[in-house]
Amino acid sequence: MASLNSIFSIFTPKNKIFYGFFEALADKIIVMSTRLKEMVSETDLDKHREILKAIENLEHECDHITHTIFTELGRNFITPFDREDIHYLGSAMDDVADYIYSSAKKITAYRINTNEEGVNRLADLILQGSEAMRDAVYALREMKDMRKITESLVRINAVENEGDDMFDTSIDRLFEIENDYKMLIKRRELYQSLETATDKLEDVANVVESIVIKYA
Amino acid sequence: MASLNSIFSIFTPKNKIFYGFFEALADKIIVMSTRLKEMVSETDLDKHREILKAIENLEHECDHITHTIFTELGRNFITPFDREDIHYLGSAMDDVADYIYSSAKKITAYRINTNEEGVNRLADLILQGSEAMRDAVYALREMKDMRKITESLVRINAVENEGDDMFDTSIDRLFEIENDYKMLIKRRELYQSLETATDKLEDVANVVESIVIKYA
Amino acid sequence: MASLNSIFSIFTPKNKIFYGFFEALADKIIVMSTRLKEMVSETDLDKHREILKAIENLEHECDHITHTIFTELGRNFITPFDREDIHYLGSAMDDVADYIYSSAKKITAYRINTNEEGVNRLADLILQGSEAMRDAVYALREMKDMRKITESLVRINAVENEGDDMFDTSIDRLFEIENDYKMLIKRRELYQSLETATDKLEDVANVVESIVIKYA
Repeated sequence: MASLNSIFSIFTPKNKIFYGFFEALADKIIVMSTRLKEMVSETDLDKHREILKAIENLEHECDHITHTIFTELGRNFITPFDREDIHYLGSAMDDVADYIYSSAKKITAYRINTNEEGVNRLADLILQGSEAMRDAVYALREMKDMRKITESLVRINAVENEGDDMFDTSIDRLFEIENDYKMLIKRRELYQSLETATDKLEDVANVVESIVIKYA
Repeated sequence: MASLNSIFSIFTPKNKIFYGFFEALADKIIVMSTRLKEMVSETDLDKHREILKAIENLEHECDHITHTIFTELGRNFITPFDREDIHYLGSAMDDVADYIYSSAKKITAYRINTNEEGVNRLADLILQGSEAMRDAVYALREMKDMRKITESLVRINAVENEGDDMFDTSIDRLFEIENDYKMLIKRRELYQSLETATDKLEDVANVVESIVIKYA
Repeated sequence: MASLNSIFSIFTPKNKIFYGFFEALADKIIVMSTRLKEMVSETDLDKHREILKAIENLEHECDHITHTIFTELGRNFITPFDREDIHYLGSAMDDVADYIYSSAKKITAYRINTNEEGVNRLADLILQGSEAMRDAVYALREMKDMRKITESLVRINAVENEGDDMFDTSIDRLFEIENDYKMLIKRRELYQSLETATDKLEDVANVVESIVIKYA
């Protein structure tokens, strides 16, 4: 007996499967951002380890989806938008997941005290940006509500700008107040990883914009 | 009454507009490199802040032009050379601008004493490489003077090679003489940012070369 | 009288030359990895300098081959597989060579004591990954033995995964035991460079996989 999955796929034109992959990636990234925000508001190391494990599993699932996007791209002759755009969008979304995971790993391995404005604000921004990214990615399927897509991209750009400023402020302050060189190096790595996650969200916004321009 | 701009654009075939964008980017990068060189020869913090503000504005203008290149790429079906090459050239030139701005920001925020050989030589090299880049980019429009383009690309490669050596020497010396760990980390970041600017100039040279090979 | 080389090239269809370039790159990277492994098992500085010189020469040869790949790509209208894949494969292989060279340069310039588990294990992994990369690249020419290609790609992925873990363990241990901040920064740079070499090997595996999917 055919599985539900294969029955479903009979009714899904081959070139439509990409939307589902991007939507699944967006959903997982939202969960990862939510867990990261939860992690930075916690101080208990066991709780950090537990959340890290969950984020790690989600990151592996994202890797798996991205890999499937790339292999399906080789198998499908017809794609809903330019092959390079599908490749770039998959890569950029996977990079967002990578930097969220990398940030969570640093917090846990380095036992960083996250009770500090910069870390919390950057984790907030990553969640906000991920939500805007999800809205933009889900809107690609119908490609109708241009106002909504544009508004989501503007939100992501605002997140990236504020991320840059928060990063600069945090690093300046870190050099001022941190007098343990090991902790200074560790915290600087964390800020960079968090800020790079917001950069990668902007990369996603740029790919979505270029898709919209060509196909709308 | 139509503006001068729109009258001008009537007479500009749509696929020719890209040359103007790349030339405008090249011009702005020359000004940025010139201001950076001025900054490193200065020691006054107020002057640094004033120059940083000017470089920041130029960097925003470069962002705006690059963004326009990408959106026009979505709208134009006919382009003067391969779409990917236009995309790569815009990205690489924008990266040069980003690293000049990032270097200026570090000098100012970290109050780095720039009265030192490595910083001055790297700023010189960025200006020389930017001038060679401008010559190469302006020569793309007519694609006639191949000797001139080749000579510009050779100059950029020489700049990148000397940049690498200057970077290695500066880092070795930094580890030898700098005994304040905060300043060591800050100066290392600055050298990396300056050296990356010369790497990005080489990326521009590589794209120009691949365009020339295909279309000459 | 025509040289052997030009007689050979008469019988080589223009679109077949790319295989030879990739095979030559793979061979040189194997030698570089072997020399790097030799370097980390040595403690004598003169020996380090001698090996570095050899690795530097090989890196320049890789640069030259990669540059030839890109220029031939502009000249050849027919290619054995997608132009972008040839470009990506050349870039990724050149990046592997760059990070091996960069690691050897850091060991020598920073006089790093390489008698340590992390450095040795990462150098081992780079050699193992390079061997698997060579097997995969040589199999592209006939594109017959799919089992062999797949098995090589699996080996590269295992190398990258173990590289990640070894890197995390090494950095944690470094922060624990290293109390000279200069040496901490230097060793951290070395671990990053070694680990990035394994990442670039994975990039090669990803390009090979996407070529295989499309053309097998």
